[in-house]
Amino acid sequence: MARIADQKTDFPQWYLDVIEQAGLAEHAEVRGCIIFKPYGYALWEAIQRDLDRRIKELGVDNVYFPLFIPESILQREKDHIEGFAPECAVVTHGGGKELSEKLYVRPTSETIIYTTFAKWVQSHRDLPLKINQWANVVRWEMRTRPFLRTLEFLWQEGHTCHISKEDADTMVNAALQMYADFDREMLAIPVLTGRKPEHEKFAGALYTLSTEALARDGKAIQAGTSHNLGQGFSEAYGVSFLDAEGKQQRPWMTSWGLSTRIIGTLIVVHGDEKGLRIPPRIAPIQAVIVPIYKTDAEREAVLTAARTLCASLGGIRLKIDDRAEKSPGFKFNEWEVKGVPLRIELGPKDLEKRQATFVRRDTAEKIAVPLASCTGAFVQSLLTSIQETLLQQAIAHLEAHTHIADDMTQCSKLLEGEGGFVWMPWDGTLETATQIKDATKATIRLLGDRANAKGKTDPQSGAPATEYALYAKAY
Amino acid sequence: MARIADQKTDFPQWYLDVIEQAGLAEHAEVRGCIIFKPYGYALWEAIQRDLDRRIKELGVDNVYFPLFIPESILQREKDHIEGFAPECAVVTHGGGKELSEKLYVRPTSETIIYTTFAKWVQSHRDLPLKINQWANVVRWEMRTRPFLRTLEFLWQEGHTCHISKEDADTMVNAALQMYADFDREMLAIPVLTGRKPEHEKFAGALYTLSTEALARDGKAIQAGTSHNLGQGFSEAYGVSFLDAEGKQQRPWMTSWGLSTRIIGTLIVVHGDEKGLRIPPRIAPIQAVIVPIYKTDAEREAVLTAARTLCASLGGIRLKIDDRAEKSPGFKFNEWEVKGVPLRIELGPKDLEKRQATFVRRDTAEKIAVPLASCTGAFVQSLLTSIQETLLQQAIAHLEAHTHIADDMTQCSKLLEGEGGFVWMPWDGTLETATQIKDATKATIRLLGDRANAKGKTDPQSGAPATEYALYAKAY
Repeated sequence: MARIADQKTDFPQWYLDVIEQAGLAEHAEVRGCIIFKPYGYALWEAIQRDLDRRIKELGVDNVYFPLFIPESILQREKDHIEGFAPECAVVTHGGGKELSEKLYVRPTSETIIYTTFAKWVQSHRDLPLKINQWANVVRWEMRTRPFLRTLEFLWQEGHTCHISKEDADTMVNAALQMYADFDREMLAIPVLTGRKPEHEKFAGALYTLSTEALARDGKAIQAGTSHNLGQGFSEAYGVSFLDAEGKQQRPWMTSWGLSTRIIGTLIVVHGDEKGLRIPPRIAPIQAVIVPIYKTDAEREAVLTAARTLCASLGGIRLKIDDRAEKSPGFKFNEWEVKGVPLRIELGPKDLEKRQATFVRRDTAEKIAVPLASCTGAFVQSLLTSIQETLLQQAIAHLEAHTHIADDMTQCSKLLEGEGGFVWMPWDGTLETATQIKDATKATIRLLGDRANAKGKTDPQSGAPATEYALYAKAY
Repeated sequence: MARIADQKTDFPQWYLDVIEQAGLAEHAEVRGCIIFKPYGYALWEAIQRDLDRRIKELGVDNVYFPLFIPESILQREKDHIEGFAPECAVVTHGGGKELSEKLYVRPTSETIIYTTFAKWVQSHRDLPLKINQWANVVRWEMRTRPFLRTLEFLWQEGHTCHISKEDADTMVNAALQMYADFDREMLAIPVLTGRKPEHEKFAGALYTLSTEALARDGKAIQAGTSHNLGQGFSEAYGVSFLDAEGKQQRPWMTSWGLSTRIIGTLIVVHGDEKGLRIPPRIAPIQAVIVPIYKTDAEREAVLTAARTLCASLGGIRLKIDDRAEKSPGFKFNEWEVKGVPLRIELGPKDLEKRQATFVRRDTAEKIAVPLASCTGAFVQSLLTSIQETLLQQAIAHLEAHTHIADDMTQCSKLLEGEGGFVWMPWDGTLETATQIKDATKATIRLLGDRANAKGKTDPQSGAPATEYALYAKAY
C-alpha cells in the first residue's frame, strides 16, 4: 500500500492520499467531478439516513423537482441570477435539435420550486409549506477538490414558505440547529453557528446562517447553511396568499442545505497521520475482525471463533476480513486508513487465552477482552466511548484554536501560526473585510453579538466597531 | 373535489385525473418533466427502501457516477451511441464559456461506468464487480406522460462485470428475478418474464430480459429490465483481466434497471373507478382514521378515542385526519382517490357501541370491529388480506387476458377487444413483427420457449415458426 503524505507538513496532499487509499472516491473523466466509490457512498447513505429523519421531524415532506431550469425562470430574481448564472452548465441542444430556450442545470432550486409555490400557495391555510429534496446540483467551479468543491455534488435542499418574518426566522434557526445537532451527535464535529456578513450571504437572501467547523490544519469549513430569503423570491416569483383577514400578502421563504462537502469536513476534522477516523455512529463498518494464523488448522480455528463472535454481536455493523491473500499487517493498515473505529484481532494466542484483542482507532489503545465478555453491549460501550473521544478531541482542538484579538499584529500572528478562528471587532464595512482578507487570507466566517462590540474599535480601519467578526482562512 | 374520468371509457384521462387528484405529481415548467409531490415521492421512497435492500442482498454496492458524459466517451460503443445520442440533452456551455468538448446528460451510465471499470478490473480476483446507483437520467422523449414516459426520470441502474458468459447469465437472471419478486411481493403486481426479441433489446446488448405487467386497459407495461451486455462494452471501453492462468481476457458485463415508471405501472395495474389502490406493503399511509362528529363535545370524545386507537397501533403507518374544515364525506373521497388501503371511521354511534368501522379500499367492505379487538395484529391481518386480494385480482386479470392464437383473425380479435397478451408462433423476422405491428399496433413483448414452436407456422408470413412470441399493445 502506498504511503500517505505527512499530515503536518503537507495537509492538502494528505487529504488526497487519504481519499484515494481509503477508497472513498476518485477523479472522474469529467473535469471537476468525482466518482463516489462504495465506501464513500456508504458514508453518504449513512448521513442521508440520519439527516432525512431529522428533516422529517421538522414536519418537512420530501419531493423532487426537475434538474433543468428554463432561462426565463432562472432570470426572475436579479441578485440570484447574478450570483449563479456565471457558474451554471447550460443545455442548448436536446433530441438532436437546438432548443428555443436554454435550460440551466440547477445550481440550486429556489427558482423552479418557487415558481410552483405560486400555484400551491393560495391561502394562509396552505402555510407553512415545508419541502425538501435530495438531489444532484452543478456549479461550474474552476478549482475543485474531491468532496470539498466539485462541479457536480449531491445535497439536500429544504425550501419553506411562511406567513411572517418571525415564522421564517424560527424555521432558519431550527434548520441551523438541526445541522449543528447532526454535526455534533452523528459526526462528532463541534461547530460555531451564527450569521454571515452581508457580502457572504446567499445570492438573493435576506440573511444567511452558517455552521462552521475547524479542520485540523486550522482552516474553517462550512457544515450546513440556512437562509432567510425574505420576501424577494415571493415578489419575483409571484407567490402570495390571502391572510385570515382576506388581505393579499407576500409570504416569507427560507432555504437550507447540506451537501457531500460534509464528507470532506469529516475527513479534515477527524483524520490523523494514519488516515480517516470515522465516528462510530456514522461508520459504514463499526468494527472489523482480523483473523491471524499461520497453519490451515489455525485458520480454521480462528475463523470459527470469528464467526461465533460475529454471531453474538448483532446490531453492530461488523465485518470479518477473511482475505487469504493479504497479511494481517496489510489489513491493519488498510482498516486504519479507512478509519474503522474498532479492530478486533483473533489469533491462536488469543484463542489459547480465550480472549480477543481490541484496538481502538481513536487512541490506538489495545485491550485484551475475555471472549465471554465480548457481548454486543460491551462493544457498543466501546463504540460510544470512541464517539465521545473523537468529539472531545475536536472540541479541544476548536477551543484551543479560537482566540480574541484586538489588534492586527495579534490577529495576523494567530492566523499565520496554527490557524484557527479569531474574533476581532469589525466596523461592518466590506472595505475593511477586504483589506484584512488581502493581508491575511482570512475571511469573515460569522458575526458575533453586537452588544460585545460596544465601544470597541476596528483595528484595521480605526473606525468604531459595529460587532465582533469571526475571521479564519477557509476551505 | 373534481371528478375522475371514467376508467372504462377514457383510461388515459382517468390516469391523468388520478395522478392530479391523488396528489402524486404535476407537470413542471420544463417540457416533459414532472414534479414529484410529497405523496408521489413517498411512494418512490418506499420502493427505493425495499428494492435497495434486495440489491444489496445480491452483493451489489451502491456508488455514484457523474451526471455528465463527455462526447468522446459516449461515442465508443457504436450501437449504444446510435441508440441513445438522438435522445440526449447536451451541455455546450459552462461557466459562461463554450466548452471544447460537449457533455451529454446521462441517458444511462454504461459508458462512463465502464470507462472506470477499465481501471478497477485488472485480475480475475477483482471479479465479479457489482455496483448500483440511484440517479436521475434524461432522455429527450417527444410524447411524454407522467411517470410512464418523462424527459427526466429517477431510477436505479445496476452494472456488473464477470469472468464468463455463464456468470453474466446468472446475474441477469438474478436481477430479473429480483424485479419479479419485488413487483409481486411489494407491489402485488404479477409479471411475465422472458427475453426481448433482437429488435427490442437494449442498444449494445447481447440480449435483454424484461418483466411485463398488464394494465387494466389491457396494455402491457415493462416493470424492470435486465441486459446481458456480452463483451461488446468490454471491447469498446478496454476492460480486461488476467485470468487464473495469466491470460488476458475480456469480461462480460450486465446492466439492469427499474425506474419511476413503476409508479405509473402501479397506477394502471391496481387503480379503479375511485382512484388509486395502493398495496399495503408499499403504502406511505396504510390506514387513515376519519373522526365523525357534529358537536364540539362529540369532536372531543371522538378525537380522544382516535388518539387512543392510534397509540395502540404501533408499527402501522397511520394517520388521523383531524382537519376541521373538511367534511367526513370529502375525506372519504380523498383517501379513496389516494388509495389508502384501510379507512377507520370513528363516530359517536361507534363510540356508543364501543366499536370502530373499518372500510377496505380493495373490496369496499365495511366491518364493525369492537375497539377492544382493534389491535396491531388485527389491523396487520387486514392489511395482509388486502395485499393478497390486490395480488389475486391482478393475477386473475392477467390470466383472463393472456391467450394463445394460431391465426391472425383470432389474434386481431383478441387485441382489439379487451387487449391483453397474445402468444402466437413467430418466424423470428423483424419484417413479420413489423407487419403485425402495423396491422394491430401490438409489439412483441417477450419470447417464449423455442421447443413449443416446433412444427408451427407463423400465421402472418406462413413461414415456419422459430418460437412463440408474446404480443401486446404496450405503454
